Amino acid sequence: MNPVYQLEMMVRDYECDIQGIVNNAVYQNYLEHARHAFLHDVGLNFIQLHNDGIDAVVTRIEMNYKLPLKPRDEFIVTLGMHKHGRIRFVFDQAIIRKADGKTVLEAQVSGVLTRNGRPIAPTLFNETFASKGWKFE
Amino acid sequence: MNPVYQLEMMVRDYECDIQGIVNNAVYQNYLEHARHAFLHDVGLNFIQLHNDGIDAVVTRIEMNYKLPLKPRDEFIVTLGMHKHGRIRFVFDQAIIRKADGKTVLEAQVSGVLTRNGRPIAPTLFNETFASKGWKFE
Amino acid sequence: MNPVYQLEMMVRDYECDIQGIVNNAVYQNYLEHARHAFLHDVGLNFIQLHNDGIDAVVTRIEMNYKLPLKPRDEFIVTLGMHKHGRIRFVFDQAIIRKADGKTVLEAQVSGVLTRNGRPIAPTLFNETFASKGWKFE
Amino acid sequence: MNPVYQLEMMVRDYECDIQGIVNNAVYQNYLEHARHAFLHDVGLNFIQLHNDGIDAVVTRIEMNYKLPLKPRDEFIVTLGMHKHGRIRFVFDQAIIRKADGKTVLEAQVSGVLTRNGRPIAPTLFNETFASKGWKFE
Repeated sequence: MNPVYQLEMMVRDYECDIQGIVNNAVYQNYLEHARHAFLHDVGLNFIQLHNDGIDAVVTRIEMNYKLPLKPRDEFIVTLGMHKHGRIRFVFDQAIIRKADGKTVLEAQVSGVLTRNGRPIAPTLFNETFASKGWKFE
Repeated sequence: MNPVYQLEMMVRDYECDIQGIVNNAVYQNYLEHARHAFLHDVGLNFIQLHNDGIDAVVTRIEMNYKLPLKPRDEFIVTLGMHKHGRIRFVFDQAIIRKADGKTVLEAQVSGVLTRNGRPIAPTLFNETFASKGWKFE
Repeated sequence: MNPVYQLEMMVRDYECDIQGIVNNAVYQNYLEHARHAFLHDVGLNFIQLHNDGIDAVVTRIEMNYKLPLKPRDEFIVTLGMHKHGRIRFVFDQAIIRKADGKTVLEAQVSGVLTRNGRPIAPTLFNETFASKGWKFE
Repeated sequence: MNPVYQLEMMVRDYECDIQGIVNNAVYQNYLEHARHAFLHDVGLNFIQLHNDGIDAVVTRIEMNYKLPLKPRDEFIVTLGMHKHGRIRFVFDQAIIRKADGKTVLEAQVSGVLTRNGRPIAPTLFNETFASKGWKFE
């Protein structure tokens, strides 16, 4: 899936652990922040949706760690999105080190939309993305 | 893989996000803590190893999210381990809610041992586990 | 103020930063977890209160760092509490290293109770603590 | 103390807790990141210093919480610095909400430089700041 969104970030020292590199769990923070920033960008507010009873729930995450990030490394989080069946959607994400363009991490994050805790079809995404001229299939 | 280790923990309020449930990235903290506690238990100190130039490096994580944990939920992190090829090893982990025994999350965490940044065979694990009477295959 | 509550915890590796010791901000997590555990212990559920429109809001924190905690260090968080004026209350907290009883950190955490965002007298605490036979002054 | 440095940041959703606002401990992450960014800016690399045996060790933190930050709030962390006695230095920090210029938090962070664990005079700071034309008193 081609990325439709990207976000620049920089490693903060407190995100690194004793090995001197970004802790593995922190990459998930980066990926989540990019997903929420993307949704905000296309007009979908994660918190507002939650207050309306609609949640985007992660059901599965796969992450392939290629290279570690270090303190003050600048990086880009990219994001594409495709459907998986009738209900599921998948974010295709990568983290790219800015200095040399090398891939730090590749991830697929699967999810469903729920209303009051029950899965619903991601029509909300269909409509939003269609209005941007993106195919969501 | 049958679990060879388990660790009891409890959700802390600060680990929960606006949705009122444990943030997705925090489960990775739980899984990591259980892995390090396990290694410590069998006599392998993660920090000591790091200072000796040996690191256990995560190369891939798959997590399937089944149920969310909530504030003060008690849970058990289980851990099994198997080899994958000559170099790679895989931790088979699950998080079980104590109140009802339901599975919260299932994960496979793949890794390699490195010495001074280069992959080495996980002989260290073979020997350690053999001394406990576990098969590591 | 004499402590009325204490909680045992252990340092997790991911809480440590590049300096090889617990990151300064993480001590605040420990302190908060002990406060919430204490409130829960006396029958005041932090999340339940929040859902009822009542929040315990921190207005000021002072922390004196004496000694750093390291990976797998066991420690005890102690907690006392006194009133400051009519509205404010103060948690007197300390973190003690279990191995040698040395003080790692001393903190005073001041707060107010709010209902729907407006400060209210901490009558809730008065009544709860009186029922335990503690003076809250 | 007049600020000599400022850094713009934005709240990420995962930094907020069940109350829907930034968790109290996270402000310390923001403050630390601004201090390290400042030191980097004047040519002092925190990690490099650590590897050379020199650490900037926080001995005391005072934080006054005025207003909470919410998801996606933009804010500015300001930083001034003064000496306290012969050995100690103090960072005077504030967090300002960008939308209305209101103060979110005021902090004083005291520290010492150590070489191999023993306090040393902060000559390093004197010299660095003098070269920038700042008084450090």
